Amino acid sequence: MFSRHSYLVVPTQTSVVNFPATMSPPSTAVVYDQHGPPDTVTRVTKIPPVEMNENEVCVKMLAAPINPADINRIEGVYPVLPPIPAIGGWEGVGEIHSVGSAVMALSPGDLVIHAAYLSGTWQTYVVEDQSLWYKIDKNTPIEYAATISVNPLSALRMLEDFVALKSGDTIVQNGATSIVGQCVIQLARIRGIHSINIIRDKPESDKIKEKLIKLGANKVFTESELEVKGVKNLLVDIPKPSLGLNCIGGNAANMVVKFLKQGGTMVTYGGMSKKPITISTPYFIFKDISLKGYLLQEKNLDEAQYRCSIDHLLALVRAGILQYEKKD
Amino acid sequence: MFSRHSYLVVPTQTSVVNFPATMSPPSTAVVYDQHGPPDTVTRVTKIPPVEMNENEVCVKMLAAPINPADINRIEGVYPVLPPIPAIGGWEGVGEIHSVGSAVMALSPGDLVIHAAYLSGTWQTYVVEDQSLWYKIDKNTPIEYAATISVNPLSALRMLEDFVALKSGDTIVQNGATSIVGQCVIQLARIRGIHSINIIRDKPESDKIKEKLIKLGANKVFTESELEVKGVKNLLVDIPKPSLGLNCIGGNAANMVVKFLKQGGTMVTYGGMSKKPITISTPYFIFKDISLKGYLLQEKNLDEAQYRCSIDHLLALVRAGILQYEKKD
Repeated sequence: MFSRHSYLVVPTQTSVVNFPATMSPPSTAVVYDQHGPPDTVTRVTKIPPVEMNENEVCVKMLAAPINPADINRIEGVYPVLPPIPAIGGWEGVGEIHSVGSAVMALSPGDLVIHAAYLSGTWQTYVVEDQSLWYKIDKNTPIEYAATISVNPLSALRMLEDFVALKSGDTIVQNGATSIVGQCVIQLARIRGIHSINIIRDKPESDKIKEKLIKLGANKVFTESELEVKGVKNLLVDIPKPSLGLNCIGGNAANMVVKFLKQGGTMVTYGGMSKKPITISTPYFIFKDISLKGYLLQEKNLDEAQYRCSIDHLLALVRAGILQYEKKD
Repeated sequence: MFSRHSYLVVPTQTSVVNFPATMSPPSTAVVYDQHGPPDTVTRVTKIPPVEMNENEVCVKMLAAPINPADINRIEGVYPVLPPIPAIGGWEGVGEIHSVGSAVMALSPGDLVIHAAYLSGTWQTYVVEDQSLWYKIDKNTPIEYAATISVNPLSALRMLEDFVALKSGDTIVQNGATSIVGQCVIQLARIRGIHSINIIRDKPESDKIKEKLIKLGANKVFTESELEVKGVKNLLVDIPKPSLGLNCIGGNAANMVVKFLKQGGTMVTYGGMSKKPITISTPYFIFKDISLKGYLLQEKNLDEAQYRCSIDHLLALVRAGILQYEKKD
């Protein structure tokens, strides 16, 4: 349910004029008053200045992505919905514009990202309690800062929270070209974990394979290459995987399960094919396979864990060893 | 993969004659030399007396059941198979006939059951190391002693090992009329745990419901009664279940999953319908449902845990609060 591709919404510059210290500038926001198709129910609206209390900060948004879950929330088909009318957007990066009199840890000019699980990033100025913002290193590329807390964070948590992986272990995933998939490949490689990656059959499969291998993938198979008996025979030089990640469902989920070793776990975080997951009984009884689900907002990362994860990911970004593979 | 119904094999009495203390009596065994249909590949054979070492005991078998897994082992379709030629049978009860000179904890006349995970109970006299036998209370009914270590033990372990249940919680199961199912109902009731039970549609459904409720079931539904929207509305007076047990597969597995509360776990221990389990993606992502499998021999209970579980179950049997519902 997370984005395969993110698009950045970059607000146009709003000229800064002098407001009383306790008032925010007027904001421009993407709002919806009812659920429905985003191009029908959303509108861009002006929001008048709001009075800030002593613990609030006003953040000038610099960039916020459109994730698929943002669309689902507007459509009203997401299981957890903000009350409407609502401002769209769930993650993003901004710069502190002004702070309330009791705010000590944040100063104008600081680069901040939204704390997890807070909606309403599609606006030019956001006023919220200081605790809802997290200061990050100013040298972070804006496009990564704006998009680190959904897809890369999900990739990291899925590699950390389900199976105790160690260097030399293997994971398998479908949907390997997605942003989550690309992050999984790179985060696994950094930890010395092998990755087996399953991609859809496309005319440009060879080119995609090459890109994923450049990111650190150990094996990349198209779905049709796995239509053979005994897929595990394809793994002569790496161990069988103990963790599988599935964002497709249907037959692509079975391909993940077929690779798993005895006692392995498949984590489902998306269902791109809209097909269910069908697993025969012996996989549960005799192969001791477990199936679990992952949803970012349900993981209830505590604040320290969240900040630690974000810091780790952004450090990797700044070091140039975590990146989104460019589309041609 | 465990028995819905067990049948007892009671060996005919073998007359006791005097053998040297270190020799066992001759035994009569059900043997198979190759895998195949049990009525074709098994034969009854005489086994000559064997010399016992000082740590071995000779047990005169009193009763041993035929579990479905025994049939599967003979057919060669079970994933873990003893080397052939093999003697059939996996659980059973016997009486100590004679003991080696170094055996202190067991004496002739003691009632013993096989330690877990040891095959070859379908014979009249069994010679094995003393550590492979477990002494039980002589007041235990033979038919329960012979059958306690597969089905009732599985019911107990499945209630203990997957979800931390407490009094007032709820479990849901299909195949509720099986021996495992009956034990689950009673073991849950003893702990103050509610049980929701799903049975197949049969002309005598009402009578079966009555019997299961007498055993301690809180709710019993036929599959057709659950072909409604919102099955959870049927649970006005008990909480939604956190644990589900599935031995059927197919649609009967979906009925278990539909009852589960957010974050619930379904454990599969059989596939009577021979149909796979098909679950849609949102159950994993938004309901956080986990699917796991259970196989007795793979659980690797340590000896202390095994003995403690068996003692607990047999004490309940002797107290008359764990029983197999009689078939009409």
